[in-house]
Amino acid sequence: MSSKPMRQRVEEYILELQDNIVSSFEKLDPNAPAFKRDSWVRAQGGTGKSCVFAVPFSNDAPGATTAQETILEKAGVNISVVHGNLPNAAIKQMKADHSSLPYDPESNISLPFFAAGISLVIHPRNPHAPTVHANYRYFEVSKPAEEGKAGEVVAWWFGGGCDLTPSYLYEEDGTHFHKTLKDVCDLHGPSLYPGFKKWCDEYFFIPHRGESRGIGGIFFDDLTNEPHKRIPNNDEPRPRTPDEIFAFIKAAGNAFVPSYLPILERRAHIPFTEQERRWQLLRRGRYVEFNLVYDRGTKFGLQTPGARIESILMSLPETARWEYMSDLGSDENTEEGKLLKVLRTPKEWV
Amino acid sequence: MSSKPMRQRVEEYILELQDNIVSSFEKLDPNAPAFKRDSWVRAQGGTGKSCVFAVPFSNDAPGATTAQETILEKAGVNISVVHGNLPNAAIKQMKADHSSLPYDPESNISLPFFAAGISLVIHPRNPHAPTVHANYRYFEVSKPAEEGKAGEVVAWWFGGGCDLTPSYLYEEDGTHFHKTLKDVCDLHGPSLYPGFKKWCDEYFFIPHRGESRGIGGIFFDDLTNEPHKRIPNNDEPRPRTPDEIFAFIKAAGNAFVPSYLPILERRAHIPFTEQERRWQLLRRGRYVEFNLVYDRGTKFGLQTPGARIESILMSLPETARWEYMSDLGSDENTEEGKLLKVLRTPKEWV
Repeated sequence: MSSKPMRQRVEEYILELQDNIVSSFEKLDPNAPAFKRDSWVRAQGGTGKSCVFAVPFSNDAPGATTAQETILEKAGVNISVVHGNLPNAAIKQMKADHSSLPYDPESNISLPFFAAGISLVIHPRNPHAPTVHANYRYFEVSKPAEEGKAGEVVAWWFGGGCDLTPSYLYEEDGTHFHKTLKDVCDLHGPSLYPGFKKWCDEYFFIPHRGESRGIGGIFFDDLTNEPHKRIPNNDEPRPRTPDEIFAFIKAAGNAFVPSYLPILERRAHIPFTEQERRWQLLRRGRYVEFNLVYDRGTKFGLQTPGARIESILMSLPETARWEYMSDLGSDENTEEGKLLKVLRTPKEWV
Repeated sequence: MSSKPMRQRVEEYILELQDNIVSSFEKLDPNAPAFKRDSWVRAQGGTGKSCVFAVPFSNDAPGATTAQETILEKAGVNISVVHGNLPNAAIKQMKADHSSLPYDPESNISLPFFAAGISLVIHPRNPHAPTVHANYRYFEVSKPAEEGKAGEVVAWWFGGGCDLTPSYLYEEDGTHFHKTLKDVCDLHGPSLYPGFKKWCDEYFFIPHRGESRGIGGIFFDDLTNEPHKRIPNNDEPRPRTPDEIFAFIKAAGNAFVPSYLPILERRAHIPFTEQERRWQLLRRGRYVEFNLVYDRGTKFGLQTPGARIESILMSLPETARWEYMSDLGSDENTEEGKLLKVLRTPKEWV
């Protein structure tokens, strides 16, 4: 056990993870421009660092396949460490999953919170290389601080996950990605992967399209020492103490590079057609639809006065496309139709 | 006064208006592919006709400026005439603006509704030519029908509007567009344009960006014989009877072509740079943000089981773009910055 407070340990870890992830992408494509590092300060309390990859506009012509092209098209690996006050209404909402939170409907008090997390979205250029998203975060609520010392922590939890969004389906990529995540989960408890895989399929669903955003991965929230609704058997071994849960979070975060980079490496240089690029841009349109219409984090961010919009919408692709009644994907025997079939009926990958 | 029921008169009018509008665009660009006419039937009751313009993918490279290019990039002119049942919860919501609606919180009845409307979005290819949107609609609620005859109408109203979204600001275009709409409004009542212009600026606002979607036009809803909250002086002359309001709606609908086509004609062939195309695509990203996050019609449609998603999302541009911390628009002395300034502080055009 470390003697440092958890908030500090999490902050140190996500800084290190951000560095590792960004370096891995930069090593993979040494001739591409470096990620742009952008540190910021939140007026209401906190700091962050965005690492963003983008290429100049003229490289962007759909269908262009020149040799100088970068592997990534648009990517962001962001961390933020913020604090502030939770209004009573927000405490009420959180109470359902965190019984230790003091909530008094009559009162109008707000409680100090702390939140630290890493969030990343990688959109590669090649239509055969999947988009990937990951997010790991720690949340803490305290009693109001007395003068000169921090308030006692009354609730804490971790959340996160990682999911893959291909435009073209390569079975071996789906299996590799899910197996890497499952192996990490299984080391920390047998019901983590099954519970979090199912949660991921349910969360990244686009109701108005009747399809998932991608082929899933893991998704979880509110992981703490209390019984958890999404883990069926609460007597089974699983991480429960802050140290145990943080160890699991670190293992999952560290699995990001091995879960994704081998896939990116083998798909980034496959020659592609104009139709494949077009299909990728249509799929990116769906990505935009999910993120703007359903994603809780995005919706919460857009509604938060003073939120950093550029960081919140960093997840959106560089280019997206919408066609009325597109013919692409309508035939189940095409590669496009094969993907849609899996998005409509999530499968077990491992 | 016509002896035909209003629902039939509206249906006939929007069919005719759709034809006129589509023909106007087709005449303007005779070498472009024709609009694709697509009639559909709603399983839950009703029919519609979508007229959609799209060009093959390979013409789409940003920055391409070859002579064969079409004036429009993506456009839809849709009508729908649907009926069904309004659940009690929906009646409760509508009650606020329509006191004649019978609403009983204890009851669980639903009331038959009828809705007919025309909705169009035109995205031209040239960054100097603005996007335009218009929508005119009629809504009717009846008592449950008795066998063999239609139920008595208990509430009816018209809604609609028309608004312009340029990527580059041409003062004369803004003035022409607003003046055409104002002239039509003024013939039907002195406070229509001021009230509906303000409502339009308020409605098409993107809070998380602190900017309007475009330079406005007119927007209104719930126009009926009852006093109207958004028309300050209800003693002033304005259309009140069904015939008078329908006459205003027709005048506004008929003003669409003269309000927009002269602008499109003079901007469609201006040579443009890669940067201008890039800025246009970034502005289309904002269009997507507004429509998916805030537009009431879109949100309602996405939440409606069995809704025709392809018609609802027809409003989205063919291509949209997102950049992290884009430099474009940040300098007030550039053409891009000049547009942003007006979007942040709507102005009086007439």
